[in-house]
Amino acid sequence: MSGKLITFEGPEGSGKSTQIRLLAEKLEGQGIEVLCTREPGGTATGEQIRNLLQHDAAGEPLADRAELLLFTASRAQLMDRVILPAVERGGWVLCDRFIDSTMAYQGFARGMDLATLDAINTFAIYERKPDLTLLLDLDIEAGFGRLEERYSDSEESHDRFEREAREFHHRVRDGYRKLADREPARFRVVDAHRTIDAVEAAVWSAVKEALL
Amino acid sequence: MSGKLITFEGPEGSGKSTQIRLLAEKLEGQGIEVLCTREPGGTATGEQIRNLLQHDAAGEPLADRAELLLFTASRAQLMDRVILPAVERGGWVLCDRFIDSTMAYQGFARGMDLATLDAINTFAIYERKPDLTLLLDLDIEAGFGRLEERYSDSEESHDRFEREAREFHHRVRDGYRKLADREPARFRVVDAHRTIDAVEAAVWSAVKEALL
Repeated sequence: MSGKLITFEGPEGSGKSTQIRLLAEKLEGQGIEVLCTREPGGTATGEQIRNLLQHDAAGEPLADRAELLLFTASRAQLMDRVILPAVERGGWVLCDRFIDSTMAYQGFARGMDLATLDAINTFAIYERKPDLTLLLDLDIEAGFGRLEERYSDSEESHDRFEREAREFHHRVRDGYRKLADREPARFRVVDAHRTIDAVEAAVWSAVKEALL
Repeated sequence: MSGKLITFEGPEGSGKSTQIRLLAEKLEGQGIEVLCTREPGGTATGEQIRNLLQHDAAGEPLADRAELLLFTASRAQLMDRVILPAVERGGWVLCDRFIDSTMAYQGFARGMDLATLDAINTFAIYERKPDLTLLLDLDIEAGFGRLEERYSDSEESHDRFEREAREFHHRVRDGYRKLADREPARFRVVDAHRTIDAVEAAVWSAVKEALL
């Protein structure tokens, strides 16, 4: 029996980490081995890359393309060391952000060439695409509202998010939706404006229909 | 006046670093601003990546594709922070290994897909190819002989080189020659079996003919 790779995509504030936790509990309840991971990071090498990706970690600005290649290096390591071995032994892997984040943020929103990003992504994941990608779709203003609540005690994180113009976040959202349109067999778009319980039910329904 | 990017390629033991030093002296004698650099490294970020690329730096084996993406991340940072600014202000940059090392070692010798590597390379260098690439071509046995001399006091470095089968090094050399055949306008193949002085004269003649 071969396992599955499910990725969660969507803007900050869309509830990815909560839904991953809830789906993991449900799958474990069915006796499935579940592994939850995230990008960048998830391996010893990936955590070191994650440090490098912090603002000015090396005391110099990071070139946009160096950043992209560091993200995908972390992805290749995660794929080779964690995701592929887990899937091969029948486990289900739930990953918070994956190839489509690169396409939405660096491609659609920042304007890097989509075909090049797709080639680099495909290389980084050893040509093994997710079995299912859940796009938690959320209106930009709703996402901002949720983050303002979450970060109300933390000036720094809030600033970091606000730094990008809202126009940027619109391009991210539109990009995600275009990706879902291009690969309807892989994507399920979940309306994330609803309550946690309602989103949980929609995620579970999509997983059952697609994979169980 | 725009500067130039000259890259030196060839197997270990072919004399790249010596020839870079000699060419830099000659160019500086002509009043040209010269910057010598190397891969991986050459920037603060690149040096951190270089550390990550050391054997088991993170306490786990590095996936082959993660390694490739780390090399090219270092290259993108070097390009953006060092090479492009230097060339734009009229400087000449001499670089010890560059895109063709990726093609020869990871592509021709290790069998990674050449078109994919070419796409990743092109992205990493911001589409700015070298103006001239000097391939210091050396017979495998001659290269091994030189390295045995160089490393006669150092068991470790010698082992590292010997670890790869000779067949691997044959594929590297053949790969380099195929790359030179494909882009005759960019490459000059220099016979590196000769004395340092003779190679120096051949390098200088190629540089004068191509760029001065």
